Amino acid sequence: MSFSLIKRILIGPPLKTAELAQQKIGNFKALAIFSSDALSSVAYGTEEILWVLVAALAFNLTLPILLAIVCLLALLTISYRQTIYEYPNGGGSFIVAKENLGLYPGLIAAASLTTDYVLTVAVSVSAGIAAITSAYPQLLPFKVELCLLSICLIMLVNLRGIQASGTIFAIPTYAFLFSTLLLIVMGLLKIHQGNFELAPSHLPMHPAVDSVTILLVLRAFSAGCTSLTGVEAISNGVPAFRSPESHNAAKTMVWMAIALGIMSLGMGFLASAIHIVPHHDETVMSQIAGIVFGKNSLFYILHQWFTMLILILAANTSFAGFPRLGYILAKSGFVPRSMAMKGDRLVYSNGIIILAAIAGLLIIIFHGTQHFLMPLYAIGVFLSFTLSQGGMVMHWVRLRKEKKVLVPLLINGIGALATGIVLVVLAWTKFTHGAWVVLLIIPFFVMLFKSINEHYAAVRAELKVGKHVEIIPQEKQHLIVLAIGGTTKVARDTVDYILTLVNNHTMIRAVHVNVHKEGHEKTIERIREFSTWVENKIPLDVLESPYRSILEPLENYMLELRRNYPDYTITMAIPEFLTSNKLANFLLHGDTGRLIYNHFTELEFNVIFVPYRIKTTSKTENKKCCQNNIEDAIMIKNK
Amino acid sequence: MSFSLIKRILIGPPLKTAELAQQKIGNFKALAIFSSDALSSVAYGTEEILWVLVAALAFNLTLPILLAIVCLLALLTISYRQTIYEYPNGGGSFIVAKENLGLYPGLIAAASLTTDYVLTVAVSVSAGIAAITSAYPQLLPFKVELCLLSICLIMLVNLRGIQASGTIFAIPTYAFLFSTLLLIVMGLLKIHQGNFELAPSHLPMHPAVDSVTILLVLRAFSAGCTSLTGVEAISNGVPAFRSPESHNAAKTMVWMAIALGIMSLGMGFLASAIHIVPHHDETVMSQIAGIVFGKNSLFYILHQWFTMLILILAANTSFAGFPRLGYILAKSGFVPRSMAMKGDRLVYSNGIIILAAIAGLLIIIFHGTQHFLMPLYAIGVFLSFTLSQGGMVMHWVRLRKEKKVLVPLLINGIGALATGIVLVVLAWTKFTHGAWVVLLIIPFFVMLFKSINEHYAAVRAELKVGKHVEIIPQEKQHLIVLAIGGTTKVARDTVDYILTLVNNHTMIRAVHVNVHKEGHEKTIERIREFSTWVENKIPLDVLESPYRSILEPLENYMLELRRNYPDYTITMAIPEFLTSNKLANFLLHGDTGRLIYNHFTELEFNVIFVPYRIKTTSKTENKKCCQNNIEDAIMIKNK
Repeated sequence: MSFSLIKRILIGPPLKTAELAQQKIGNFKALAIFSSDALSSVAYGTEEILWVLVAALAFNLTLPILLAIVCLLALLTISYRQTIYEYPNGGGSFIVAKENLGLYPGLIAAASLTTDYVLTVAVSVSAGIAAITSAYPQLLPFKVELCLLSICLIMLVNLRGIQASGTIFAIPTYAFLFSTLLLIVMGLLKIHQGNFELAPSHLPMHPAVDSVTILLVLRAFSAGCTSLTGVEAISNGVPAFRSPESHNAAKTMVWMAIALGIMSLGMGFLASAIHIVPHHDETVMSQIAGIVFGKNSLFYILHQWFTMLILILAANTSFAGFPRLGYILAKSGFVPRSMAMKGDRLVYSNGIIILAAIAGLLIIIFHGTQHFLMPLYAIGVFLSFTLSQGGMVMHWVRLRKEKKVLVPLLINGIGALATGIVLVVLAWTKFTHGAWVVLLIIPFFVMLFKSINEHYAAVRAELKVGKHVEIIPQEKQHLIVLAIGGTTKVARDTVDYILTLVNNHTMIRAVHVNVHKEGHEKTIERIREFSTWVENKIPLDVLESPYRSILEPLENYMLELRRNYPDYTITMAIPEFLTSNKLANFLLHGDTGRLIYNHFTELEFNVIFVPYRIKTTSKTENKKCCQNNIEDAIMIKNK
Repeated sequence: MSFSLIKRILIGPPLKTAELAQQKIGNFKALAIFSSDALSSVAYGTEEILWVLVAALAFNLTLPILLAIVCLLALLTISYRQTIYEYPNGGGSFIVAKENLGLYPGLIAAASLTTDYVLTVAVSVSAGIAAITSAYPQLLPFKVELCLLSICLIMLVNLRGIQASGTIFAIPTYAFLFSTLLLIVMGLLKIHQGNFELAPSHLPMHPAVDSVTILLVLRAFSAGCTSLTGVEAISNGVPAFRSPESHNAAKTMVWMAIALGIMSLGMGFLASAIHIVPHHDETVMSQIAGIVFGKNSLFYILHQWFTMLILILAANTSFAGFPRLGYILAKSGFVPRSMAMKGDRLVYSNGIIILAAIAGLLIIIFHGTQHFLMPLYAIGVFLSFTLSQGGMVMHWVRLRKEKKVLVPLLINGIGALATGIVLVVLAWTKFTHGAWVVLLIIPFFVMLFKSINEHYAAVRAELKVGKHVEIIPQEKQHLIVLAIGGTTKVARDTVDYILTLVNNHTMIRAVHVNVHKEGHEKTIERIREFSTWVENKIPLDVLESPYRSILEPLENYMLELRRNYPDYTITMAIPEFLTSNKLANFLLHGDTGRLIYNHFTELEFNVIFVPYRIKTTSKTENKKCCQNNIEDAIMIKNK
């Protein structure tokens, strides 16, 4: 009772399935839910590029590379818009790759998306908390706890349903968006007015052209491409939008791309113009904000806070995406069916909880540092990008006779090529930095999906019955075995129940297991003379148990009955007495009933339970019994 | 299967109850099992006294105080010998206090013994590992792990049975005993020959008499009395000895006392003669051994090792004592009955495992440092000593008309007084050092024991039936409700089973819960037309589930049936399908059967299970099914 009350307080009252339409979200909230991952990358995208270029002092390449990335972003956006219209039920890369490239590419896409979603949560929460602990070092010892707390909060908000998460997470997302736009506008103004103190730089600003190689440019490009993670999220979540779903999703996608593009280019331009050099103690974005707003201004402090929040909230995109992917995989039987069940608040609660649990585990294992996980993360994203784009190319090829497909085919083709190149460069440059782990994780997931699918298929095949199967009701003979522990009311009620239920030609036996060697004769005698079966002529078998186990002799006895009565269907009847409290049942009475049930259903015996609930007892009765009990205890000595 | 194999390897094949006599131990092994706690105290007893005396520089009081402690030891030994003969079934303080002083003193003794046993394990294992890590500091980071490993090993050896633990633990116990005796003999020889370099001492050796107060002497005496913990162990475990049990136990007790007395006095004398001063970096015993054997001799190194081992093995005394106490408490219904069950190897396995678990938990909580636990530990021991002695006094008073009781009464009386004084001094001096916790723990245990006892008494009172209760078999009406998920073989078999089992006037209904809102009409239609009940005229009820829960609508339905058919006994029949693997059952199929069973037995409905085991399927079948499945998956898009 108290658990369900806590649940109600935390996630709210349950919603009816019919209320699903009200749980569709408008574009304003959708942008906050699905884009926090992509938008948050503004906080580190430029920095990633600068760190690669710092080796060759080729900072003048920053803007061209950012331009290329924004072009790729535009390409991906157009390309995913096409996916949104062609696949309005969501599922993104998995469905696109499976339908157009085959089962295994689909499962590989699903595996890399899964990896990506889990890592996004772990990486972005760790990054956000790292930003907080670098601002407030006294919080450093609680890094892991803070990460776990953040994940719990995001999980709870998501369990409240998509409306709640949209409302709550919209505030920090838009706050970050507008404070960053403000930063860019103020920066541009200041540059225009020329009233700028340049950042102190200990590095010469003219490039060492010789050291600029193609590989360096590619590496910088790939590093910057980590900004593009999360772009696919909207295309995976089309069904969450209000009707017309595809149209709204496509519109939101474009808005997200425009926001991301403007912010990325703006930050890149400011970084180049102010001659920012990446630094281990302060992020590039913080350096820019410090110079533009001034280190002590309220704007600076607020912007820092919004940045931390958006980094943590990037995790929310996974909480929107992963459960939906889980649903689609579960519908096709590639993951446990429970992933397809909508919880009280019409979200796929199991997926949300599992995502939080795995990400939490990763954070505990890696002590809340994201560096180990980063390479894995980017590779998963670009693998699924490439498969999705490739799938769309095949999709257009297939449709070429029905409509004009040249332009969309070209767009997806160039998209596949570009993301494929990034994938190869990432895999190449990051292989020894942990990217090899992907070679283990993705095949593992693919195999897991496949074997779960085979299991479900096999079960279904075996359980299927035709629509009008002929049933010839054989006159089955029944044998019922009463497992009896003592001469109690429970035993009497069970005999009563069985006798009145079954038909006349059912055979009934009683059985008792004697786990004591000596001093138990009186009890056995009492059981033997128990009026109930003496009157009803039920034969009693007493089993000796030299090794003091109840299940073993009972199992041998039942299996022997099965051998001796091959034509009989054998059922075990268990008198089950319940106390007011499940814990007491388990700790104080050993829960023998449940033990027997588990054991004998596994052995394919039918089992009948006759529960008997102990009523509350008065205190005076207790007193008397207790007194008896003490006398019993004293008896031990004198035996 | 593999679990039971591992179990067999770790603890050996099960023993028959009839083999109990062979599991009785000889005095040689018994001394090792029951005395390791007491004997190990030689390693720290003298030191505890010196640390108190160092404040007043009153080292010349060491020997007198030790003499007084040995006198108390002699008194306790004689007194517990009397207990052994009077109470040959063991149980020690609990039984003695309960029978002679009443229920609550008995329960207080049981509570303090329980506290004592658990703390002995945690304290002694921590102390032993601390000795090892101070010799090998590189092991320090693994302190907790080493503690837990030691506890696991001791637990496993004890689960192998008392013979095994006697054999294995005799070696280090006797090694410690003889190497310590060797140390004392060699020390005395060297003192006799006068060829001694005195230990370097920075303290004057003449006492500052002014500062010697009664309280100081009492504190030193109480500190030294910690050596006496474990003395009562033999009297608790009399039934483990060979016949004649009491005689053998009494003999072993005397041998233990002699060994402990000689070693304590010997160490005390050496410490005084060599002018040892307690030191934080090296124990007193190690200082003595270093001087007597020489720091680099093999004797010195071996003696250090044996000391570490005996400190850890002191825990074994608890493993011998606690499960026996648990058995006695369980027999009288003060702890869960499962504590009274003998395991495969004829020891009370549940007690052994619980002791290891709680001690392990304490070690994890206190990070393997024993200082926090020490005060609690000693107070528990002396509380049970005092209660036991007091109980014996009452015992003799009661028997005064039957035999001469003056001498034994005096012995126990003085014993009660002495241990009572130690108890008060310990409580007084250690109260703020954590001894106040005892004031919480002991009443908690007493209340727990009492409430468990009341629970059992109440249950027994309610279930009891008279020997020849008149049973009037009422012609009960039965209503069976079939819970059906789909048109599978399992459903068909269940219908078949129920139809052939029950008598003609039993009412049967089928019920299906629709958790989907839309798109499920086809399945419902198929269920409605399922030939099995159409032919047998079983009415089908389809329950809508707006909140997607299975249990809730089913519960409402069943409770309504109960209201509508008050004269009927209602039974729910659940078709249960089982896959080859329990984990798969749970993860992939949600284990709905078990969920329903738990829920409806709790609501006091009778439940019938009809298990159906899925057979293994061929790979080719899988292939085909999987293909269908993929087509299903693709269908999602087009819906």
